[in-house]
Amino acid sequence: MNIEELEDLVRQMYASTMPGLSIDCIVFGFHDSAIKILSLRFNNADAWMLPNGLIFHKESIQQAAQRILLERTSLKDIFLKQFYTFGDLDRTNIEDMKTMMPFPSILEMVPKRAISIGYYALVEHSKVQPQLDFMTAECRWFGVDELPKMIFDHNKIVEIGLKSLRAQIDHLPIGYHLMPETFTMPELQKLHEAILGEPLDRANFQKRILSYDILERLEERRTGGAHKSPYVYRFIPEKYEAFLQREF
Amino acid sequence: MNIEELEDLVRQMYASTMPGLSIDCIVFGFHDSAIKILSLRFNNADAWMLPNGLIFHKESIQQAAQRILLERTSLKDIFLKQFYTFGDLDRTNIEDMKTMMPFPSILEMVPKRAISIGYYALVEHSKVQPQLDFMTAECRWFGVDELPKMIFDHNKIVEIGLKSLRAQIDHLPIGYHLMPETFTMPELQKLHEAILGEPLDRANFQKRILSYDILERLEERRTGGAHKSPYVYRFIPEKYEAFLQREF
Repeated sequence: MNIEELEDLVRQMYASTMPGLSIDCIVFGFHDSAIKILSLRFNNADAWMLPNGLIFHKESIQQAAQRILLERTSLKDIFLKQFYTFGDLDRTNIEDMKTMMPFPSILEMVPKRAISIGYYALVEHSKVQPQLDFMTAECRWFGVDELPKMIFDHNKIVEIGLKSLRAQIDHLPIGYHLMPETFTMPELQKLHEAILGEPLDRANFQKRILSYDILERLEERRTGGAHKSPYVYRFIPEKYEAFLQREF
Repeated sequence: MNIEELEDLVRQMYASTMPGLSIDCIVFGFHDSAIKILSLRFNNADAWMLPNGLIFHKESIQQAAQRILLERTSLKDIFLKQFYTFGDLDRTNIEDMKTMMPFPSILEMVPKRAISIGYYALVEHSKVQPQLDFMTAECRWFGVDELPKMIFDHNKIVEIGLKSLRAQIDHLPIGYHLMPETFTMPELQKLHEAILGEPLDRANFQKRILSYDILERLEERRTGGAHKSPYVYRFIPEKYEAFLQREF
């Protein structure tokens, strides 16, 4: 692609989308007893960023977020929650843009200010197939404490998103989308502990989760572990959805 | 003002603000043991709406929300929380606009689509002095169940804002900004019950609130009521703010 073609592409992109607005997505996964976050690296630059995109004139912001995530992860029907809109004056940094887009004519076309709507997605780690496009060179999972310095305010977006997720999981069992189909109570507790970053009391945890009345205990038991074989559970989708509807 | 002057004013307003973006504010007050919401009526029309406005290029969205509320309520340093951004395709209704703005040339200038960032404010009812401007004919407090049909999706915005406030107050003592300087425990409980729309157990409520360690019990007691004179409390501002910082 030569520079004229790139200019055309960028011009078309801005013409068909809402000016000065974007969407940033935190994709949370759970792997090896730890919370992971999906980060992209921009072409030809050491610039890491959250999956992001613009909003077409003809789609709702929720549809835009779903589309952006589908493009990045190949996942449909993702659990996706809007958590905060970022609108500080200095949130986008022209220096970051110069690194990513070393073409003065393109930089001229970028809006000086962008307000970004933050969403987080909870996905089962093993089901994600990260997708690259012509602008991205690499797609990688990072632990919360291992995240690189990202462009703009993306590290702050992760911080606020994590706070929001922690506040949610305190009173909502949103683990469904991060867990495999079936799991044991200790495995579900590990997920909660990974999100909260602190250990939980086993008996209280089990009592609280069962009080939501959204789990079905299966006949089978997990065998082969160090402890006495624990029961295996699965979420009851209808009850789980009904429970979430009360809050969302 | 003639139509040319109005056109100029509207043109200037759009030129100095972020296109296709607005802010809607729910102002919650507490009066006569009930939660009240501030609603405005548009000039020469039976069109009710939430206090709202646009975002100047040179202000953050938080500053814009503070400014809009200052203009509407004369209140500074308001407790203000962003709770959701509304971006459905059909949220603004051209018929509503025709009622409010019966000038075809002005209607032409209004963006076809607007995404709105929702904030809620918690204010002490008695301190608010609602302000009218050249576009608004009336400013009135309504009970949650008495709200008129408002323009666009403003009734839905109230519904989501109220859900958000209820979820917050469940684990955060955000009553400070809705209460007078000093209050009794039964008075604070009444506020929580008014927000939640359901009665709370007296002993559990008191235990939970005191566990936050943000209240100071004064020497005085409230006298003159039907019951044995209850203690009078006030929030300790520094501890209260520190507590909120953990979550916000």
